[in-house]
Amino acid sequence: MSAPETKSKSKPLGPIPAGFGVADGVMTIAGTKVTDIIAQQGGQTPLFVYDRALIARRVADLRAAMPPRLALHYAMKANPFGPLLREMAGLVDGFDIASGGELGMALNAGLDPARISFAGPGKRDVELQAAISAGVTLNIESVTEAERALTIAERIGINPRMAIRVNPDFGLAGSGMKMGGGAKPFGVDADRVPALARAIVDTGAQWRGFHIFAGSQALSADAVIETQAQTLELAARLAREAGVGVPHLNLGGGMGIPYFPGDTPIDAGAVGAALADRFAALPDELADTHFAMEMGRYLVGEAGVYLTRIVDVKTSHGETYLVTDGGLHHQLAASGNFGTVVRRNYPVAIATRFDAPATDEANVVGCLCTPLDRLADKALFPPAQVGDIVAVFCAGAYGASASPATFLGQGPAGEVLV
Amino acid sequence: MSAPETKSKSKPLGPIPAGFGVADGVMTIAGTKVTDIIAQQGGQTPLFVYDRALIARRVADLRAAMPPRLALHYAMKANPFGPLLREMAGLVDGFDIASGGELGMALNAGLDPARISFAGPGKRDVELQAAISAGVTLNIESVTEAERALTIAERIGINPRMAIRVNPDFGLAGSGMKMGGGAKPFGVDADRVPALARAIVDTGAQWRGFHIFAGSQALSADAVIETQAQTLELAARLAREAGVGVPHLNLGGGMGIPYFPGDTPIDAGAVGAALADRFAALPDELADTHFAMEMGRYLVGEAGVYLTRIVDVKTSHGETYLVTDGGLHHQLAASGNFGTVVRRNYPVAIATRFDAPATDEANVVGCLCTPLDRLADKALFPPAQVGDIVAVFCAGAYGASASPATFLGQGPAGEVLV
Repeated sequence: MSAPETKSKSKPLGPIPAGFGVADGVMTIAGTKVTDIIAQQGGQTPLFVYDRALIARRVADLRAAMPPRLALHYAMKANPFGPLLREMAGLVDGFDIASGGELGMALNAGLDPARISFAGPGKRDVELQAAISAGVTLNIESVTEAERALTIAERIGINPRMAIRVNPDFGLAGSGMKMGGGAKPFGVDADRVPALARAIVDTGAQWRGFHIFAGSQALSADAVIETQAQTLELAARLAREAGVGVPHLNLGGGMGIPYFPGDTPIDAGAVGAALADRFAALPDELADTHFAMEMGRYLVGEAGVYLTRIVDVKTSHGETYLVTDGGLHHQLAASGNFGTVVRRNYPVAIATRFDAPATDEANVVGCLCTPLDRLADKALFPPAQVGDIVAVFCAGAYGASASPATFLGQGPAGEVLV
Repeated sequence: MSAPETKSKSKPLGPIPAGFGVADGVMTIAGTKVTDIIAQQGGQTPLFVYDRALIARRVADLRAAMPPRLALHYAMKANPFGPLLREMAGLVDGFDIASGGELGMALNAGLDPARISFAGPGKRDVELQAAISAGVTLNIESVTEAERALTIAERIGINPRMAIRVNPDFGLAGSGMKMGGGAKPFGVDADRVPALARAIVDTGAQWRGFHIFAGSQALSADAVIETQAQTLELAARLAREAGVGVPHLNLGGGMGIPYFPGDTPIDAGAVGAALADRFAALPDELADTHFAMEMGRYLVGEAGVYLTRIVDVKTSHGETYLVTDGGLHHQLAASGNFGTVVRRNYPVAIATRFDAPATDEANVVGCLCTPLDRLADKALFPPAQVGDIVAVFCAGAYGASASPATFLGQGPAGEVLV
């Protein structure tokens, strides 16, 4: 009647990021047991917990690795949680937003508009107007967007701050998310940039320079180094051809974090050393430029953990299922349904048995009534029971805000910065 | 500098569902131009529009195809929009919910709890209690869930209505979403059902029978016919082995809708005729059973359209991009990021040039700053301009509620039933 119950080969889990501890067998975040953190939140699960000390350490380590001339920007699309935004405001030099909604959240968090830039291929007129009014820098994505922005700026009597987002002719090798190299909806093709830059400068707008974002989520330092070299060369060439200066150059991001089995952290020191060498030998066009890198995931991704409670432990045809009260409605990417072709396991652990030996193969699934809702597939865990807490790591970026929270009537998870 | 600008071969679009018209070149829904519908909603785009007449016709056609003895249930996870739920209440015989949140929405919409059943592998205690209190039927997913439900019911002094969700030993062939056949987190393995059914009946609980859901989104009538035959046989066998009756049998759903190029509608008449034959020769165990099919997507999917406005038209390396104010934050599945391995185009049209010849290859992208945000890939459309309205079809199910609306600070789309 049943299919033969063969024991499948267990699948590996992604690497657990550094910085989490254990006390009495229970995982700790910022020195506090996850069970205590949950209790402090009124027992609420699922719960995203973001560790402010880990974020601060990541930013400090990155600053130490990078040349002092490089500014660090936070791409708030990675995680727009209010308390986290306010924390980041004290850590980084600027913010990048992607919508009028993010502009509102950034201003609500008390961020200085002069430190904000706005990129996005489909900016509506109302969004352009709000950004111009606030004094935010627009990363212009097309000739027609430039025209719309200038028209709005003239109507409301404010001199707009404008940079051009360039679609470079190169991509970031090994990048999880290519944003350049060939036809793209983002930015202006490089060969059309000089004419547009010239035209913008000629209007008397506050010219801010270039935004060149070739890709994200790369783990190879060499790939980022090569892309940054190409980015500097391209910016200098575009400035030369346009006959304009480059007050500011957003080099994009590109540095990724390990999610999957076999992934290793990118060597930020190597990226920083190479960038320092480049900065020591800049072409004339970039001699006075302010440089920035824009990062989201790299700054906050590993500092976040998603905690969800086991509500049932069941077996089916010889397989064990740990059924949790969370799922893809909060962790779309971890479930393998966002930007990945082949599902692989994120780092996942039984937080309430954090130092117990992983002896039993189990699937961790969410509470949704769909086979897509899987948080870990055929991986080894300590034997777990109803009430145990599961931790899904790398949940600090593209988690809560990048998942369909209302699916199946569930609603959002809790979020807390500790 | 640029890559060679070769014209790629255009990719086909999915088939546009029947029931939409055109007036003065503009697509109509329920006889009204989409531009007028948008204007009536204060100009709001993006906007989901659901056509109540198309839903009513779909239900009526299905009733005509099916034997009168078959009840039709609506799986509200497909679309929980309040006005649509109230409409469905007058059309179908029951509702299926998947969470406490959906229970609340169903009760708010005025639905009769006696017509509601609740399935879901991770029901929390608070959800079980709310459902038992309301008099909803629980589709029990495990032995431990049965124990929890009975404990809660005893504590609150209400005799619970309980059915068992069975994990069948067969799946639905050609199904987009297999829910049976092998190890699954859903339901109770068939070979363990008789003992659990006997135990539930022995407690004196209100025994409601079985829920057997083998899969969804199949376009082959033969596959659904075969699965329904297996389902009836399984239910009869389980009842015989358990020595219990089957007051109610939820046969699941399974009938899909065409989304992609080459998809053709399922032959509901063939499914209904085969089911009528089965009903005419039922085994003794099912002689007095009430039968139901549970459907979401099939009932409402094709009645919904997602309307989004073009905010930019740009070219990059010879490709045209129609950049809209919508995107994957409302249309995750259409973007190819939910439950699909290879991205294919949904049916998409320029609604404001609905009868114009499709001569120009273009990509339709959303406003999000990610390459994942693509609504149509290299397809032929009439030449479009800023301000034109794009229609994405098959948006009535798993659209608004199954997409990450808060991603990049965007927020939800409008929704209206016309």
